[in-house]
Amino acid sequence: MDGFSVKPLGVIRTPHVDKGKTPIQPCFAGDFEGRAEIFPEYAEGLRDVKDFSHIYLLYVFHREESEKLLVKPFLQDAERGIFSTRAPCRPNHIGFSIVKLIGREGNALRFSGADILDGTPLIDIKPYTELFDRIEGTKNGWQEGLDQRDAYRRGRRR
Amino acid sequence: MDGFSVKPLGVIRTPHVDKGKTPIQPCFAGDFEGRAEIFPEYAEGLRDVKDFSHIYLLYVFHREESEKLLVKPFLQDAERGIFSTRAPCRPNHIGFSIVKLIGREGNALRFSGADILDGTPLIDIKPYTELFDRIEGTKNGWQEGLDQRDAYRRGRRR
Repeated sequence: MDGFSVKPLGVIRTPHVDKGKTPIQPCFAGDFEGRAEIFPEYAEGLRDVKDFSHIYLLYVFHREESEKLLVKPFLQDAERGIFSTRAPCRPNHIGFSIVKLIGREGNALRFSGADILDGTPLIDIKPYTELFDRIEGTKNGWQEGLDQRDAYRRGRRR
Repeated sequence: MDGFSVKPLGVIRTPHVDKGKTPIQPCFAGDFEGRAEIFPEYAEGLRDVKDFSHIYLLYVFHREESEKLLVKPFLQDAERGIFSTRAPCRPNHIGFSIVKLIGREGNALRFSGADILDGTPLIDIKPYTELFDRIEGTKNGWQEGLDQRDAYRRGRRR
């Protein structure tokens, strides 16, 4: 496989227009709401999504231009391997957020926990489920022992 | 944005060569091991990954050819919107698995919970962390009330 082509399925609308002020994860962005607007040709696929409380939004970091293998994570002043972080400047500019679903409005899903830039191209939606996605007792690498208050301030970015 | 190009960063090796016999999620594939082999030019990005117990492997469903908006999930005989399922026949053939890391061996990560076909192109690795990814008290849509034994039999696919 040389390259693989991904197509936009819609666009994500949020209050965030400034990269430097966008929360880095939904856990720091609980009160920011957003809308995932799906193009009409894919809307039929939204059936049954409203019965889940949380969903993964997959998207392209469309305003990221750099690509690094080592990076200082937003939450810590130490250089880490890119694959041990969720930083956008990764070899493929694909990100996801686990957001809380508020409801469906026509061809859009309203959600809270918006940590995504306005205008971001949406490439997939997947349900978050207890059976598949909630893992107990994980070892959390460099995130172990982060000061919670400091993490919140850095992660929220304001 | 028209299309977006994704490049393979490596290849995933597993014991699964038959689509019809590959477990559908890591929770049904605990004892199957696999290796995520990263191309040398990206290996520096693996630093610090070994300190996490679980990682997301993002990949291309390279042997999936169809695209459906409604699908019967592997775990249930009812037609559901594709975005309420993790089925491979989605508009963009991107999947991920949350696997348990066994360790790093050179440019490869050894893991258990292999629910991926052998030869699958790897497109990203992200850490799974308690802070970002473990959501309590979720509502799990059509998965609520599945019979556990039946789900295991269907999910394991053998």
